[in-house]
Amino acid sequence: MSAPSKSHGRKTISASLTPRDLMAEPTRLKGAWAAKIITLFPDAFPGVLGASLTGKALQEGKWTLEKIDLRIFGEGKHRNVDDTPYGGGAGMVLRADIVGKALDFANRGTSERAKWPVVYLSPRGKPFTQAKAAEWAQADGITMLCGRFEGVDQRVLDHYEIEEVSLGDFVLTGGEIAAQAMIDATVRLLPNVLGNSVSTEEESFSDGITLEHPQYTRPAEWRGMSVPEVLTSGDHGKVDAWRRAQSEELTKARRPDLWAKREAGDG
Amino acid sequence: MSAPSKSHGRKTISASLTPRDLMAEPTRLKGAWAAKIITLFPDAFPGVLGASLTGKALQEGKWTLEKIDLRIFGEGKHRNVDDTPYGGGAGMVLRADIVGKALDFANRGTSERAKWPVVYLSPRGKPFTQAKAAEWAQADGITMLCGRFEGVDQRVLDHYEIEEVSLGDFVLTGGEIAAQAMIDATVRLLPNVLGNSVSTEEESFSDGITLEHPQYTRPAEWRGMSVPEVLTSGDHGKVDAWRRAQSEELTKARRPDLWAKREAGDG
Repeated sequence: MSAPSKSHGRKTISASLTPRDLMAEPTRLKGAWAAKIITLFPDAFPGVLGASLTGKALQEGKWTLEKIDLRIFGEGKHRNVDDTPYGGGAGMVLRADIVGKALDFANRGTSERAKWPVVYLSPRGKPFTQAKAAEWAQADGITMLCGRFEGVDQRVLDHYEIEEVSLGDFVLTGGEIAAQAMIDATVRLLPNVLGNSVSTEEESFSDGITLEHPQYTRPAEWRGMSVPEVLTSGDHGKVDAWRRAQSEELTKARRPDLWAKREAGDG
Repeated sequence: MSAPSKSHGRKTISASLTPRDLMAEPTRLKGAWAAKIITLFPDAFPGVLGASLTGKALQEGKWTLEKIDLRIFGEGKHRNVDDTPYGGGAGMVLRADIVGKALDFANRGTSERAKWPVVYLSPRGKPFTQAKAAEWAQADGITMLCGRFEGVDQRVLDHYEIEEVSLGDFVLTGGEIAAQAMIDATVRLLPNVLGNSVSTEEESFSDGITLEHPQYTRPAEWRGMSVPEVLTSGDHGKVDAWRRAQSEELTKARRPDLWAKREAGDG
């Protein structure tokens, strides 16, 4: 795995931001799903995505990651990317002209929009779900704009017809963690990324409706607690029935909203 | 905006993975909110949390981060932490005895449970929200268990009365990104972390019900599009009314679920 917390990475990044590098067409393996991330914190990537299954898949070229440093497109000595909001208020807003340049740059080598979503990570967006991850995994790639500050000029979202997607009903310092979460959820659905493809089918939300049943492993006895007998019975039918029942009970108790959707779908 | 993260703070943080460090009582600044993360990927932290506002706050001691490498508590030559599930099925399950040792270790120096939540990041949990972030920001700290594989032995969740929290209705490779998202959302609500405290009040979900209005900044004209006239009128009352109306329209259109909650609350 890579070590995202080595801080010398920041220096490397600043060094890599020469116009020559920026002009080079990024190499993309034929058929590999590609993520392009526009961010003020390129060092944050791949982060956790460089570890475990997603990291292995990245190394094996099953997906690619292009970090696009928004700062490069900034103006003036300090490469400004933001300004105060019209109409007043706290914070700073990312400028349409600067973000526009970064998006034009990101658009090189991408497929038509139907096969290459362009999204802005924002709590104003439609909530991200497993269905969205599955949809994105069918695309050729994705471009993600990570916000910071109070947001981005609305005109750039309108002009590029950017899809706003939210990680959930909470506010983050910026879009970087949201981007990583969504890439993680998407990449693991790409062909041949998960070692055991059965895993995707069995887990929560793969059917969109139920939470996963409890799991047990050795030791058989721990602090006075044993595993449920049915699981050591060797009767696969009973095991399946128990798990299904557990899964349904859990969903009803914890997520009546998901359960209601299931009932509606069945009814 | 804050300067893009001076990352020298990271060295201090990433030095912690030797057994010697693990045995030392972690230093915690008096009154500083503390996050303890049990993970198989300690290198993933602080990750993005080491940058920007959360990184600055970390350097300034406004919160602390203790990474607890689950592998340390593993058994045998390979420090095994997982085993196959009872009852069969794909994947591996984190062992109760191993996770239990890590939790016992994490419990050193923590407050009573009411002031120190212990959570497991899992799609089976209750969805994380801004209200939960606000609740956690009132605590002394938090312990987070990051899952991998098919999950964790149910007995360890039961025995420690661990709260399961979900980042959303999607499946991640592991809990690390979810932990980072939740810490980010929580840390920015800690006292004196956000430079401009007005920001928290104005943004989406701070009132739990509406999405943020569109933002505009210079240039006044971009690709033939101007900013809405009201924003340059200098009439604060009109600006506020316009923003409120935009915010409500956006919420109705994109999140009828949030809007319905608001109506229910008002009615």
